[in-house]
Amino acid sequence: MSDRFRERLAEAVAARRSSIVLGLDPDPARVWPEALAVASAHDGAPGAPPSPAAAAAELVVAHCAALIAAAGPACVAVKPQVACFERLGSAGWAALERVVAAARAAGLLVHADAERGDIGVSAEAYAEGLVGPAPGLDADAVTVNPYLGEDSLEPFVGTGRGVFVLVRTSNPGAADLQDAELAQGGPLWERVAALVDRLDANAVVGATAPEHLVRARALMPRATFLLPGVGAQGGRVEDLAPAFAPGAHGGLVTASRSIARAHEQHGGEPAAAAREEAERLREAAWALCA
Amino acid sequence: MSDRFRERLAEAVAARRSSIVLGLDPDPARVWPEALAVASAHDGAPGAPPSPAAAAAELVVAHCAALIAAAGPACVAVKPQVACFERLGSAGWAALERVVAAARAAGLLVHADAERGDIGVSAEAYAEGLVGPAPGLDADAVTVNPYLGEDSLEPFVGTGRGVFVLVRTSNPGAADLQDAELAQGGPLWERVAALVDRLDANAVVGATAPEHLVRARALMPRATFLLPGVGAQGGRVEDLAPAFAPGAHGGLVTASRSIARAHEQHGGEPAAAAREEAERLREAAWALCA
Repeated sequence: MSDRFRERLAEAVAARRSSIVLGLDPDPARVWPEALAVASAHDGAPGAPPSPAAAAAELVVAHCAALIAAAGPACVAVKPQVACFERLGSAGWAALERVVAAARAAGLLVHADAERGDIGVSAEAYAEGLVGPAPGLDADAVTVNPYLGEDSLEPFVGTGRGVFVLVRTSNPGAADLQDAELAQGGPLWERVAALVDRLDANAVVGATAPEHLVRARALMPRATFLLPGVGAQGGRVEDLAPAFAPGAHGGLVTASRSIARAHEQHGGEPAAAAREEAERLREAAWALCA
Repeated sequence: MSDRFRERLAEAVAARRSSIVLGLDPDPARVWPEALAVASAHDGAPGAPPSPAAAAAELVVAHCAALIAAAGPACVAVKPQVACFERLGSAGWAALERVVAAARAAGLLVHADAERGDIGVSAEAYAEGLVGPAPGLDADAVTVNPYLGEDSLEPFVGTGRGVFVLVRTSNPGAADLQDAELAQGGPLWERVAALVDRLDANAVVGATAPEHLVRARALMPRATFLLPGVGAQGGRVEDLAPAFAPGAHGGLVTASRSIARAHEQHGGEPAAAAREEAERLREAAWALCA
C-alpha cells in the first residue's frame, strides 16, 4: 500500500528537484516580524478582541505562511509538528488546518508529525484524524511509534499514505531502548527495521548517527528514510548518501530551526535567510542523488 | 515530582472508595439514544445548520456527559482517548475541552490518553498542550511512550502531574518489541520498568497478562499502575491484586466499552446498565484493597 505514497513522492521530488522537508514547529513567542505585522493588522479589525489562544493561533498561521512562501519553493513537503498546534487548544487545531491548506496551495506534500502509537479503536481514530478526509487532516504521511507492536501500525499501513515508523531517532535518549542489545543479536532498532521492511513501510532514521544509515539501508532496501537532525542537532547532509541509494526519493531531509532561524545564524532578513538556507540544503541533498 | 499526583490520587481514591477509571472513546455513530435526543433538540435551535463535524462533536459531548452522569459516581477519574476527539478536527478538540470540564464538575480526575512520545521542543509542546493550563487541557495525568528514551519523558515528569509510561501493554502486538529478550537478560519491558522506577513515574501494565504483574510490582514498587484490558479484552479485576500491594492508589482499573456498552451485554437502558457495571467493577477492585 505504501507504494502509492512512494510513487507520488518520487514524482514530486523529481518535479521540484528537492528532498527537503520544511519542519513547522511554530512558537508564538518567536515568530518572524512580518507575522507580527499581519497579526496586528488583524487585531485592528472590528469585532470582539480575540482570546489569547486565538491571537497566538493567528500569529502561528501568519508565521507558517511566511515561512512556506520563503522556503517552500526549495522543498518538497512540510512537516507540521502537531504538538506545537495542539498546545493552543481548539484554536491551534484550526490553525493547523489552515497551515495544511497553505502548504497544499504551495504544491507541497504534508507530513503530520504526531508520533502516534496506539491500539485498536484508538489507532483507527488516529488514522482517521491524521490521514482521513476532512474533518481529518488528510495528510500525505505520518510518523508512528512502534513500541506497541505490529497491530498498532496496521491501521496506518492500510491507508495508502506514507507511514514513517520511528526506527533510530536523533536524540541522545535514543540509545536507552533503541540500542538495547537483543539476546538474538543486534540492537532493538534492527528488529523494528525488520518489521518496517515486512510491512513495506518507511522509516525515521536520525541524521546525527550516519554510521547507522548503511545498516538501516541494508535492512530496509525499499523504505523512504525521513532524516531529522540536520543543522541545529549537528547532522550533515553530506553524510546521508546511503539513504539515497534507491534514488532521489530514498531520503527526505527535514529541517526546521536551521531554516526558520537562519537569520540568527547568518544575519539578514528572516525570509531571505530562510530561502537561502533551504536552497543550500536542497542543493547539498540533490548532489547526493545525481 | 510524581508524589504530588500520587497524593492527590490517594485522597481521591479514599474519598470515592474507587480505583475505577472511566474510559471515554466516543464514536459519533454509536452514541446513546439520550445523546441523540439532546443533539436533535440542539439542531432545532435557530441559526446556521452545524457542519457535519460540529454536529458529530455535539453528539460526542452529549454522549460523554450522559456516561459521566451515569457511571462517574462509581469512578475516580475519566480517561478521554484524545484520538477519538481529534478525528473531528478543531470541533473535536473543543468537544474534548467541554468533556474535561464536565468530568471536573463531577469531581473526577482527568487522564489525557494521548500516548505521546517525542523529543525536545516537541515533547515540551505536548506537555504544555496536555497538562499545561488553558488553552492546554490541564489534565491531571497523561500516558507517554518510552521508545525515544529518557529525554523524551523528562518534560512530562517535571510537571508534577501523573506520568504513565507504557511498559507492558494489553494488545497482542505487545509481544513484538516489549517482550524482546535482551542480551543482558530479561525482556525489554523490564528495562522500561527500571527507567520508570528511576524517574519515580507511573506505569501502564495490561490487565490481560496478570503473570507480569508480580514482576512489574517488584521492579516498580512505588508506581501507580494503570491497568487497561479488563472486560472487552478479557482481563479480570480479580487477577489484579499485585497492583494494589502498595495500597488502594497502587492500581487504576480502566474500562470503557464494558461500561458504555454494558446494555448490549446485560440488557436494560444504557445509563442504568453502565451505572451497574461501573459499580460492579468498583466493588470488585475495592475488595482487593481492603
